[in-house]
This record gives sequence, C-alpha cells and structure tokens, in this order.
Amino acid sequence: MPEMRVHHSKKHSLPFFEQEPAGPTVRRTSGRPKCELNKTELDEVVDVQHVDMPVNFTQCFGNYICDLDGQVLLDVYAQIASIAVGYNNPSLDHSARSDEMVSALINRPAMGNFPQHNWREILTSGILKVAPKGLNQVQMASAGADANEMAFKAAFIWKRQQERGGYHVDFTATELESAMDNSTPGSPQYSIMSFKKGFHGRLFASLSTTRSKALHKIDIPAFDWPQAPFPSLRYPLDEHTEYNRCEESRCLQAAEDIIKTYHNPVAAIIVEPILSEGGDIHASPAFFRRLRQITKENNILMIVDEIQTGVGATGKFWAHEYWDLDFPPDMVTFSKKAQAAGYYYGEKTIRPNKPYRQFNTWMGDASKAILFRAIVDEIERLDLVRNVESTGKYLRAQLFELSQRSPNLFMNLRGQGTFIAFDSTDRDLFIAKAKELGVLIGGCGERTVRLRPMLIFQEHHCDILIDVLTRVARDMQCS
Amino acid sequence: MPEMRVHHSKKHSLPFFEQEPAGPTVRRTSGRPKCELNKTELDEVVDVQHVDMPVNFTQCFGNYICDLDGQVLLDVYAQIASIAVGYNNPSLDHSARSDEMVSALINRPAMGNFPQHNWREILTSGILKVAPKGLNQVQMASAGADANEMAFKAAFIWKRQQERGGYHVDFTATELESAMDNSTPGSPQYSIMSFKKGFHGRLFASLSTTRSKALHKIDIPAFDWPQAPFPSLRYPLDEHTEYNRCEESRCLQAAEDIIKTYHNPVAAIIVEPILSEGGDIHASPAFFRRLRQITKENNILMIVDEIQTGVGATGKFWAHEYWDLDFPPDMVTFSKKAQAAGYYYGEKTIRPNKPYRQFNTWMGDASKAILFRAIVDEIERLDLVRNVESTGKYLRAQLFELSQRSPNLFMNLRGQGTFIAFDSTDRDLFIAKAKELGVLIGGCGERTVRLRPMLIFQEHHCDILIDVLTRVARDMQCS
Repeated sequence: MPEMRVHHSKKHSLPFFEQEPAGPTVRRTSGRPKCELNKTELDEVVDVQHVDMPVNFTQCFGNYICDLDGQVLLDVYAQIASIAVGYNNPSLDHSARSDEMVSALINRPAMGNFPQHNWREILTSGILKVAPKGLNQVQMASAGADANEMAFKAAFIWKRQQERGGYHVDFTATELESAMDNSTPGSPQYSIMSFKKGFHGRLFASLSTTRSKALHKIDIPAFDWPQAPFPSLRYPLDEHTEYNRCEESRCLQAAEDIIKTYHNPVAAIIVEPILSEGGDIHASPAFFRRLRQITKENNILMIVDEIQTGVGATGKFWAHEYWDLDFPPDMVTFSKKAQAAGYYYGEKTIRPNKPYRQFNTWMGDASKAILFRAIVDEIERLDLVRNVESTGKYLRAQLFELSQRSPNLFMNLRGQGTFIAFDSTDRDLFIAKAKELGVLIGGCGERTVRLRPMLIFQEHHCDILIDVLTRVARDMQCS
Repeated sequence: MPEMRVHHSKKHSLPFFEQEPAGPTVRRTSGRPKCELNKTELDEVVDVQHVDMPVNFTQCFGNYICDLDGQVLLDVYAQIASIAVGYNNPSLDHSARSDEMVSALINRPAMGNFPQHNWREILTSGILKVAPKGLNQVQMASAGADANEMAFKAAFIWKRQQERGGYHVDFTATELESAMDNSTPGSPQYSIMSFKKGFHGRLFASLSTTRSKALHKIDIPAFDWPQAPFPSLRYPLDEHTEYNRCEESRCLQAAEDIIKTYHNPVAAIIVEPILSEGGDIHASPAFFRRLRQITKENNILMIVDEIQTGVGATGKFWAHEYWDLDFPPDMVTFSKKAQAAGYYYGEKTIRPNKPYRQFNTWMGDASKAILFRAIVDEIERLDLVRNVESTGKYLRAQLFELSQRSPNLFMNLRGQGTFIAFDSTDRDLFIAKAKELGVLIGGCGERTVRLRPMLIFQEHHCDILIDVLTRVARDMQCS
C-alpha cells in the first residue's frame, strides 16, 4: 500500500512529546473500507448522519488522530476544539488512573447535598485556580449548553429578586401559583439577549439564544428573546479602524435600544469573545468594553460564553482578558477544552435566596473537575498559553503569506493565538483536500475554515500544516 | 466518644459484600464539628445552602455512607436514588481502572463526528443490552434533564416532519428565516404535555414540564405548555379499585381533551411511571395502557421518563414493564442509577431527516457508558433485579406492620420493589430522627418519606431500617 509521509525540515524548539508521530501518514487507497464498515454497523443503533470518521483513540497521540484504515492525520480540529493537551497525554493518563479519579467515577455524589470532603480543594487547585480575574465562585454543569442555561437561571433569579425588593423579600402566593402553571408573574416573560451568528448551545433556552444556522433551530420551539446585530468588521481589523468603529457603534446602539425597549425585559446578555460556530467573527476590545458599560448602566448581567474560546486557545487563558474590562463579566461559562463545564460568578450576592432554586441531582462531576485540574497542571508545566501565543504568531505570519498568493482561498484572515480562521471559496472542498493530504480541519459559518489546534501545537506542526495548505491551494487553483 | 452500634439478629441470605459494615455507627456528640467546618470552607466557593452533609466517599462501602465526624449511616437515599450497586463497588472499581476507561476519559471524542471504533460494542454490550423491549436505538446525553430535552427535540422534529409531508420534504424559505428569529412557522408554538406533580428536570424546557414545586420553577421563564391532572389514588391500590378507576378515568379524559384542544399543539407527552419528586404518586397499569392508546390515536409521541424509576429499583429493570403495553413507548429516558443519561427510541424513522439537527459537541460520554456497562454486569452477576423484588416484598410487609401500629407516620404506604414511600405527619422531623439513629432517608412531595435504597439492599439491611423506624415512631409518638 503506497504511503506518503510529510516531513518537516526547519529547526524549531523541542517537541513537547517525543512519542508523537513525525507527520501524517496518508494511505492513497480508494475508500476507507474499515471506517465504512464501522459506520454502517454503528448505524444500526445510533444516528450516524454526521459521522466524519470512526477513530481508534488508543492509537492517537499528541496532535495526531488515527482512523481505522491506518491513516494518521494532523488534527487541527481537536474534537470540535475540545482536546487541550493532546491525545493520550501522559499526565492526564496518570491523573485518570489515580485512586481519586476512580472514587469520583464509582461514587458519584449528589454534590449539592453530599459534597465529597475534598470538593473545595479539587475546585481551588483546579477550576478556580484559573478562574477569570474578579470571579471567585463556580457552579459546575455537565456541558456547555446547560452551563449557559444555569447562568440564565441565575440571571433571571437575580433580576426578579432585585425587582421584588431584594434577597429577603419572599414570593407572593400569586407568584407561586402562577409559576406552577408556567404563567406570569411566577414564570416571568423575561429574556436573554444574544447576538446574530452567536452560538450558545442546543437545548431549548440556549438554542433560543443561538443564531448560527437555521438547521440548528428549525422545528424546535423557542422563547421570544431578542437578538442584536453583531459587528460585521473588515479584516485585518487594524487596517479598517474607521469603518469598524462605525459598524461597532451601530451595533452597540442597536443592542442598547433592544435592552431598553424589548417587550420581554432583558435580564442578561450573552456573548462569545469570538463568535465561533457563526464563522469566527471578531470585534474589538472597545466594543466589548462598551457592551459591559451598557449592561451596567441598564442593570442587567453580562454572561461571557468562553465555551470555545476559553482555556488558552487565543493566547490568553480566557479570551476576554484581551478586553481589559473595568468590571469583570458577571458570569463566564466554559466547557470543551476544560473537559468539564460550568459557570463562574463574581459575587455571593448573585446566589439565589433559598436552597434548591439552582439545583439538580449531581451539581457537577468530580471526575471531570479532577481531569480539568490535570489539564491546568499540564498547561502550567509546559507553559502552553505562552506556546499558543508564540505559535499563533508564527502561524498567522505564514498564513498571511499564503493569503497574499491565494487571496480567494485565505480571505479575511483573522485570529488570536492559534484560534485562527479564514474564508474560502469552495470551503468544503478545501477541507476535504486538506484531509486527503493528511490534515483534519473543521469549518464554521458559511464559508469559513477554522483552525482549532490543541494547545500543544508547535511551530514544526505549523510547517506541516502550511505545507499541506500550500498544496491544497496549488491544487485548487490549477483545477 | 460514646458509640452506638445497631446489630441485626435474624438470619438471612448471605451479604453480597463481606466488607460492608455490620450496621450504622452513630456518635452521640453535640454537633458535627468537621462537617460544619468543611461546609463553611466550601461556602467560600460554591453555594452550600442545600448541603446535608459532606461525605468521605473513600470510607463508604456498600449501603453505608460516612460523614467527616466518624458517623456511618445506612443509606437508603443513595445520592438521590443514583447509586445502583453500592459505594466502592469492587466490580466498578475494576472497570474504572481499565485502560478502556482511561482512554475514554482523556480522549473524549466528539462522538457525533468521530465515534470511537468500539462505540457500537460499548453500547450493545451495556446500555442497549438492557434496552426496554421494542426499543433498539439510543442517543446519549449528559444528565436526565438534557436527555428529556433531546427527546423533546426528537418529538418536535418528528411531528413537524410528518406535517410537512414526510422525511424527504424540505423546509421552506419562510420556515428557515423565521426559525432564525425564534418565530413561527420555523420555531413552532408546539408543546409537550406533562402531568401535575411530574418532575422532568430543571433546564428550561424540562422545567416547563416539571410541576413538582413552585420553588423549582419560580422566576424562570417557561413555555406555554399544558399539564394534565395525574390521578390522586387511594392506597392500597387494590382496596380502592372502583374509586381509583373513576379517578383515573377522569384524568385520562382531561389528558385527551388537552391533547385534542390545547392552543399550542401537543407533539408528545412525558410521564414518569411513579411521579417521584412530586411525592411518589402511583397509577395503575391500565391507566398507562390507556394513555398509550390515546397518544397513538392522536398521533403524538409518548416519552416515559425512567430517570428515577429505571435500572431495577422497582423490581423490574424498567418500571414501565409492569404496564404490559401493546406498543412500546416511543422514547424512554434514563439517568441516575445508570450513571449515564440518554434516551432510547424505537424506530429509525424517528431520526431527523438531516445531519446536525440533533447534535452537540460530545453526543454522549464513553466513560459513563463503560461505567453503566459495568453496572449492568454487576446487576446480572448478583441477580439484583430479583433481589430488589424479594427484598421489597419483605420490606413492604414489615412497613405494613409499622403502619398498623403508627398510622399517622406511615400513611399511604405504597411501592414497587424497594421503591417505597409513605406519608408522615411532621415528615422532616421523622427524617431527622432517623438520621440521628443511623439511617439516611430522603423526602419528596410535601410530606412523603421515600425509600431509595441501592439494588444491593438486602433483608438484613431491612431489619436495621425497620428497627430504626420503629424507634423513630416510638419517639415521635411519645413526644
């Protein structure tokens, strides 16, 4: 079976993991018989319509993913941006084999009622060690969507509590009765404002704030909640400052108008630092700073959704650190690379006034918190946020060169750290060709190629990626 | 420090686990200093309003739970009914230490795009091995609430697809546009019908079907979805057949009227076999059989929520097996004792017509599916469903005797298997006194004591429980 191996030539800093393959292995056979058979068999029990390829994870390592037909691909998609420190990371392997992990798995507590004795220690040495500046409380959830929805619940409870006259004012009988009937005033017709092209999850309230694609939303009942326009900026941002300032100003005005006038009063806004599923759409720090002011002025909460941007990928641990806010966001949600999910909040005063208002059976998962702690330790040990920052700079420079040579394939190049995207004519073909040449890449929005490498992506991996993209460009421009 | 140890005397079948404590250890000190300190420290980072007691899970075993002050309690609450085969179960410990588990933890796939090579095998040898009769497909979720919501999404998609003219009929431009704006027809004002006192989770759509307590719902926006009355039967059921038949008939008629006339058309109903959080409310198999007929006649789906009743606790693997249905439910959701969550569906035709309509980043969690498989194996190895059936019979007989002696403390005794409840005047005091004497019990509804022992609860544990309840009754009737 003929093989092609991509080698890199330049000299860079040492690889983090010597065990990692030197490059992709692409088998030039027609079809992938084992992958196809596996998918057909799986189809008997689960819906496989969206399956890209079955993977043997025991054979993956670092930045490399292996399918069932012996292909080894450089993975810059990372399980939809959710693998942080590489496949089969030895430090995570060590953590997963610990007695602490085993106990967390087989004795899963109802953490809200019966927290395990070292829950605080697990949180403070892991999740809370990297908490965004100004925020010191956390509530764990199961995944990004429910983390956002728990943040929404906190916001609604906070807003109504304020309007009721404060923490100690009790509910009226009418409120209690109407809540049981899903009607006002007990179930208030309040709203969360999100932005066009934003993505915040696929459960019902989170989906009501998601505005990425109609296919994500169609046929699913939604709340009557408002969406503000998100700036449609020109890239590179620093070459279009005047145009971009006007566009951001327009959107800020629209957002403020909605907050002041929407018929279902807005309790909070939710926004991603970079609108990821919607097509990697950026705005300036000034935009987000002003948005924060608007929320303060209108006495509503600001929830920053760092589910995709969080945990180092932008060259900061949290992408909103770029904004240099005067006040921290009220809540920041996370998931994906944390391999855990939850939201932070800043003040104890945002807690509900009674127990069991923000509650569920498990209230988090110690096994995932332990894993996130191991990820945090690994990020520190290898100084990975700095790695992302420097690798990102190197990679963006090379992509810029490609964009000069093939502007239609690398339009609107943009990014922070290695959280990089560009628009491509015939995007899906572009991604398919890259896969054939040994690199697994994802798309987002209508025509955007998004790079979501792991935090252990280094300059020598960039060279392989650039080499493949160069060949894709050459191929697509010849055809 | 004075100690009290409860011993059992009668001879029963051998204990499943010899390592288990012989009985509770209650320390009669004033206060629980280490538990209190731990809770105070935890309060710095998470809301502890609902904390009952911190637990050292490394010291728990089998049916026994240990707090931080050396108390060992017989646990018939089991982390809100979610520990199936005992704390630190050796078989689960073995599974948690497997290479397969470690890989699942540290290489968590985006299972919808990149399923691991043995995903089908993990499902078919675990979750699907115990799938309810007639259902052979599964979609994993993270927890009970999102399992229900994914089932709701499947129902809405199915319903609209039918009305649109079938699987192959595409969306109109108007539908696609309006969905992006959360408005009709793309976001239809359709509903899920639930029952009064039902509990289906605390996210926004699941909470819209939850009708347990106002405190669970207040201040949270809800969908305009209908609730049908659930029969309020007299116990024991077989002594009030005529009254109960009339009451069930009344509720069935009301349910059917809602389904036929509610202004937001009903796409599916959701119901628990025993309304658990609402107060362990039972209905007859005939009621559920007729309900199933009504859904068929009105061309809507029936979702059975087995999150609390599922996985053996009622003396059947699934509680709805008692109903002897002509057609299986369309979907059955599970979580809790499965330590995993998800929903089953019966027919491939219920799948959405396009990929990415029912989708999220992880689409399940292999680590939890592996754990559930180990739980299923342990249930088979120890024949635990049969154990629950026989232990439940033994326990109900003894509780019946107690109810004859103290009717105000053991009112409306009811149950299947060891899934048993009774109503008590001054319920919270009853539960507090039982805890002081070494048994951890939970409540539900307004005045219900619910027993939710693990599947490894045996007759000798019943004796300890009955001894404690007898003393509680004596104490409460003297005071």
